[in-house]
Amino acid sequence: MPKGVSMPILVMKFGGTSVADLDRIANAAVKVQREVERGYDVIVIVSAMSGRTNELVNWVETTSPFYDAREYDAVVSSGENVTAGLMALRLQEMGVSARSWQGWQVPINTTSAHSAARFESIPRDNLDAKFAEGFKVAVIAGFQGLSQEGRITTLGRGGSDTTAVAFAAAFGAERCDIYTDVDGIYTTDPRVSDKARKLDRIAFEEMLELASLGAKVLQTRSVELAMRYKVPLRVLSSFEETDETSGTLVCDEDKIMESKVVSGVAFSREEAKMTLVTVEDRPGIAGAIFGPLADAGVNVDMIVQNISEHQAKHAVKVTDMTFSCPINQVARARKAMEDARDAGLINFDDLVADEDVAKISVVGIGMRSHAGVAAQMFKALAAENVNIKVIATSEIKISVLVDRKYLELAVQALHDVFELDKA
Amino acid sequence: MPKGVSMPILVMKFGGTSVADLDRIANAAVKVQREVERGYDVIVIVSAMSGRTNELVNWVETTSPFYDAREYDAVVSSGENVTAGLMALRLQEMGVSARSWQGWQVPINTTSAHSAARFESIPRDNLDAKFAEGFKVAVIAGFQGLSQEGRITTLGRGGSDTTAVAFAAAFGAERCDIYTDVDGIYTTDPRVSDKARKLDRIAFEEMLELASLGAKVLQTRSVELAMRYKVPLRVLSSFEETDETSGTLVCDEDKIMESKVVSGVAFSREEAKMTLVTVEDRPGIAGAIFGPLADAGVNVDMIVQNISEHQAKHAVKVTDMTFSCPINQVARARKAMEDARDAGLINFDDLVADEDVAKISVVGIGMRSHAGVAAQMFKALAAENVNIKVIATSEIKISVLVDRKYLELAVQALHDVFELDKA
Repeated sequence: MPKGVSMPILVMKFGGTSVADLDRIANAAVKVQREVERGYDVIVIVSAMSGRTNELVNWVETTSPFYDAREYDAVVSSGENVTAGLMALRLQEMGVSARSWQGWQVPINTTSAHSAARFESIPRDNLDAKFAEGFKVAVIAGFQGLSQEGRITTLGRGGSDTTAVAFAAAFGAERCDIYTDVDGIYTTDPRVSDKARKLDRIAFEEMLELASLGAKVLQTRSVELAMRYKVPLRVLSSFEETDETSGTLVCDEDKIMESKVVSGVAFSREEAKMTLVTVEDRPGIAGAIFGPLADAGVNVDMIVQNISEHQAKHAVKVTDMTFSCPINQVARARKAMEDARDAGLINFDDLVADEDVAKISVVGIGMRSHAGVAAQMFKALAAENVNIKVIATSEIKISVLVDRKYLELAVQALHDVFELDKA
Repeated sequence: MPKGVSMPILVMKFGGTSVADLDRIANAAVKVQREVERGYDVIVIVSAMSGRTNELVNWVETTSPFYDAREYDAVVSSGENVTAGLMALRLQEMGVSARSWQGWQVPINTTSAHSAARFESIPRDNLDAKFAEGFKVAVIAGFQGLSQEGRITTLGRGGSDTTAVAFAAAFGAERCDIYTDVDGIYTTDPRVSDKARKLDRIAFEEMLELASLGAKVLQTRSVELAMRYKVPLRVLSSFEETDETSGTLVCDEDKIMESKVVSGVAFSREEAKMTLVTVEDRPGIAGAIFGPLADAGVNVDMIVQNISEHQAKHAVKVTDMTFSCPINQVARARKAMEDARDAGLINFDDLVADEDVAKISVVGIGMRSHAGVAAQMFKALAAENVNIKVIATSEIKISVLVDRKYLELAVQALHDVFELDKA
């Protein structure tokens, strides 16, 4: 192909375990080379070699417990720089013309919120010029950017996935392939159900609901960004032979024909159910409760308001307010509620924490047009004598809290009733 | 002191062993803090933590044996970036306002000769602005710079010393303090003579002669730069308590009052003496010999031309040509000479290599105005029955080759005769 003719662009992202050592970097480079041979100009996003970031973070925290985030970013970003250079060298060694790029060289312009920066712009000029010169691969140090003040920023956890999607959006990439240590997105966790099946495709919205429930394969922020810019994301394995049909494609729902009503069963073991008993039921009471919880950094998920059993004993109208949050935030939630009571903002008789529950959710865009999914779910759980403690629903998700001991049983029952093992 | 009033600037450089771990970085930070308390704005130049650069170099060489120097520089420079950030954090933790700077941020403009770049300019604007804001310390990642193409460059071995001197010159620093693992420059190696004495001051020219002979404390290029810009250099220990009189000051000779005739006795164990026997003695013969040796990368030091003992047997005028070079270059030198003979450039009967010699030099700017130093040296060696095999002299240095077994004896005798143990 003559110089100056622009080729379709593919973004490929390799996480820390995929570039953990020189052998794995070489293995990833083979996958990049194959895409170049298929005719792509490739933008590769790399994480730090597995373990390096933790080492650097540890040095920073030991040196300065309340560290300056600007210096944290300057130190920690060096891990990705090393991988980017080594990947470019490996590709060159294989005869593929490649060049590494650190965030400030592209430049990846971000806000100045150090350690939690957000993208502002990724100008194409520098990379486009290199591709026009005949370079086939640009290897980008992920997870980092440049502030307006000329300082290195980092994006916080999951920033490498987000970097990949941002480049795919900026360069109009055909697809963004996320190489990781699993071979795709499953209908549920295979460790809980041996009938779990890898999905060929899943909608962005479904992935968002699954990711936030702990599927942990793709960082939520990257999926949101991909959805906004309609960048097809593919999740696939670094450690297996892969071809153009491997992995799971996360895409716009109109690219998914004949989708099932339910796509997957997600769950979270680490949930607690908290109930504020006999709260005064007055306008504004929800804000008076959940405002202080949010301020205290408690991630409240499900919220249910019941009529209190104790109504008869009270002169004013009272209610019980139940919510769920991660187990490790129970103490924090309790303190926030007691402080609010001491400050006279709310009133309650008791705060009961049930730390022995799990959350199970069925997710599927098909629910929008299908009635009866909830009834089907509740019936399946009842058939196994699983008692439902809390229910919450959204447009494409139904979640329940159950006693933790029923988790596996409930997931398997739901996987069966929605026939998720069948393609 | 109110903002905007400019303070005297001090440059402090810490090598790899001085910042080998977090404790040593903390220890170095204490020394920096002390200079801030004395009223300086401080520019700190740091190397990579000891061992890190070798690890990075090893990764590069394993990934790509004939590596692209641009990518080598991008990878290897990350070691200094980590130290710079950690040092800034440590200083902040101690209450000293500090900021780290990578080469591209200053920017340290260099040539594009990757892995062997040379400084082009170090604009003061960015650092001056930070000092004016009230920052007291700028921590600079040493050993690196930025090419006109926007790529990271490195300066090659000893580049951190040179970075320090370049900053001292650019910022008109009062002094450039090089912290290392020795406490100064000695009259000779203390392992060879227990009478070796630390020098308070030494002239740039003397240091250059001592450094190139293997004193190995300061990199030659940094001393040359310091001499050109008249930057006083101080060599002192990272591992001892130091104050304003510690170490050895390397400075202009007019700052050294009442210097001795001889300042030090340097030596090199790893020398070989090579003799080309019965070379045709014609105009241009020296060029015909030493041109090919230089091309082959042989570091020829001393050169002596004798009348050949074999003159009687030859019709043309012949000579013996003797030179010295490092032992590990003997094979290379031999090949260069044989190739030159095969190519008809030179003619010789034999090439005799004596690999059992050592070089000893006495160095001192006082020699310029004192006659008889050579005679005194030869007499002292004769008194110990040390036979001199080759002699070479420069304005401030006299070097001799002797049998290696006499090295210690000769050094001690010369140290005594020039009374170097006395201040």
